[in-house]
Amino acid sequence: MKHIALLGSTGSIGKQTLDVVRRLPRLLRVVGLAAKSNAEMVAEQALQIGAHAVVLSDPSVRGIAEASLPKSTSISYGSDALELLATREDVDIVVVAVSGAVATRATIAALIAGKTVAIATKEVLVAAGEIAVKAAQLGGGKIIPIDSEHSALFQCLQGNSIDAVDRVWLTGSGGPFRTWSADQIADASVEDALKHPTWRMGKKITVDSATLMNKGLEAIEARWLFDIPLSKIDLVIHPQSLVHAMVRFNDGALLALLGTADMRLPIEYALLYPERIPLDIPRLDPADLPDLTFERPDIDRFPALRLARLAGEQGGTAPAVLNGANEQAVTLYLDKAISFGQITECVEGALIAHNIVYNPTLDQVLAADSWAREHVRRGTM
Amino acid sequence: MKHIALLGSTGSIGKQTLDVVRRLPRLLRVVGLAAKSNAEMVAEQALQIGAHAVVLSDPSVRGIAEASLPKSTSISYGSDALELLATREDVDIVVVAVSGAVATRATIAALIAGKTVAIATKEVLVAAGEIAVKAAQLGGGKIIPIDSEHSALFQCLQGNSIDAVDRVWLTGSGGPFRTWSADQIADASVEDALKHPTWRMGKKITVDSATLMNKGLEAIEARWLFDIPLSKIDLVIHPQSLVHAMVRFNDGALLALLGTADMRLPIEYALLYPERIPLDIPRLDPADLPDLTFERPDIDRFPALRLARLAGEQGGTAPAVLNGANEQAVTLYLDKAISFGQITECVEGALIAHNIVYNPTLDQVLAADSWAREHVRRGTM
Repeated sequence: MKHIALLGSTGSIGKQTLDVVRRLPRLLRVVGLAAKSNAEMVAEQALQIGAHAVVLSDPSVRGIAEASLPKSTSISYGSDALELLATREDVDIVVVAVSGAVATRATIAALIAGKTVAIATKEVLVAAGEIAVKAAQLGGGKIIPIDSEHSALFQCLQGNSIDAVDRVWLTGSGGPFRTWSADQIADASVEDALKHPTWRMGKKITVDSATLMNKGLEAIEARWLFDIPLSKIDLVIHPQSLVHAMVRFNDGALLALLGTADMRLPIEYALLYPERIPLDIPRLDPADLPDLTFERPDIDRFPALRLARLAGEQGGTAPAVLNGANEQAVTLYLDKAISFGQITECVEGALIAHNIVYNPTLDQVLAADSWAREHVRRGTM
Repeated sequence: MKHIALLGSTGSIGKQTLDVVRRLPRLLRVVGLAAKSNAEMVAEQALQIGAHAVVLSDPSVRGIAEASLPKSTSISYGSDALELLATREDVDIVVVAVSGAVATRATIAALIAGKTVAIATKEVLVAAGEIAVKAAQLGGGKIIPIDSEHSALFQCLQGNSIDAVDRVWLTGSGGPFRTWSADQIADASVEDALKHPTWRMGKKITVDSATLMNKGLEAIEARWLFDIPLSKIDLVIHPQSLVHAMVRFNDGALLALLGTADMRLPIEYALLYPERIPLDIPRLDPADLPDLTFERPDIDRFPALRLARLAGEQGGTAPAVLNGANEQAVTLYLDKAISFGQITECVEGALIAHNIVYNPTLDQVLAADSWAREHVRRGTM
């Protein structure tokens, strides 16, 4: 029986994690749930799954939380409470599916406490990957990816030495603008950007999938997850979203992991690793596969790829700036304050203006992130 | 340094094995070579690769062998000499790339002697799979596949428990008659049957790839190699011959192994397992892949698939009869004594006429094989 703290239970990944736990009651138990402010939903989830600890980031929902939960449930508030939940002695696995600085602090605290962190929040590893890796080494914690591409890579690497890896590819559907011209993309509406061809996800990541920034962030994430240099991490466009990643070994063998576009697959793998347990969800039959097609990504139409590669290569606080600026720009775009083309312009502006700090502390990483957000906000006011 | 006895050095797999060894002189050394009767070629190979033992099945070539090799080379003749080579104390890996009963006896002797057997001759495991598995258990030997599909399965299974396997697929190009009608196939000429779309191989296996008997034999081979029931082993037609096998795990994840159609890849993997060493041969780039297509095999047009499945399910000596009858029928077809359609008719006739012996001894397996060949020869005289 593995005991889980689920940070971000009311989001898309959080709900699917609870679905996986409900299907495997003899193997998985949720001891604590954390959410931002949706006290009604988190209370309902806690009652249903039997979690006896609840953390809410927003203390103003205290009334609702206390009215909805029994006295035996421990309820606490704020980011310190989140770290306490992530490091509880009775927790084996911390699922990180919240965003922002709280996710980074909780992840690092959990790794130092020796926990297994099943990570869905790619921003943590993008901004603070080196620190997270050091925290894991220090505390004996382990990082297991939930992102479908990284889970696929992780699965392809099982039973093989990382030294035998010649090159890896993350796949991307190419997003809704795969076949659009640069001019069309520059003025794409929010409605168009949210029409992802193959995956149902939150709004922010869906916009990232339209700029392809998501793939850029994933390359940086992979760099830290697998200790593979960025120069060996590539991207290939695969519109069917069935192959999630490929690894070419130095003898030429190329392993690919395929699966339906269902996040419960990588969630289950992360929670049960290294075991695999039957999950009653639709599965692929090779004879029924559509034609699988692959194409090279177009860096000219999708400059986010270039910016992410640049920031990843520069290192230090550059990836934190990339990520913070991008998050802020996407928020502005979703608020219709800037155009689609301006998202990457904002990110590029922040990267240029930023003075990189090398070998940063966690506080310096978080400061760079805040600075980048502020820079984008000011620049577009 | 791994020391190799190469049984069948003058055939296609044998020559490619020597090519791999030549490229990795610090890791691999050939101590002995065996061939049927091509004494000139085997002598040249022995001199070039530095092998100090040579076995020839045919003693009548003694004169040529002794004239071509230095006195320091040990030269011996016949099937007993082959078994002695396969069990030599200084041999770590026995590459089995000869066909017929000698391959079966040498494989089993090597496994009992605790050797690693890198097996290219699928007939050994088809006819005597259960006995080979028991020999390996008894003597501590290991069987590693060289066949590209089985090597691909083997690679997909690394780092995963066999209990977590839901289903496996061997891929096949579909052969030269993939799009032909049943009537066209029945009268296909030898020239047409030898035009394999993607692989360059020997004549016998090329005809087996046209009837799809090759895939039927491979399913039985996989059953013994991986201890997976035949009911979980499937076939999918994949005309590009880039995906060699797929494994679906019980959580729905589907691993696929891709590679160029170059036998040196699986040969190297078998010889160096579990290590992977760079080999300077062309490699795949996902962005340059053609569209990968998959289709269900047509059992009506390719009855060999049905016969192989039947024989595999019946077990005992039935697979030995399937294989023996098929080999004989293919020989007759290559001699233009029977039509393409008659190949599977001969095999079906032999399977029907045969009284299966269950839990057979090796002698009973070899007797069933001989009986089947004789049955096919007589039936077509």
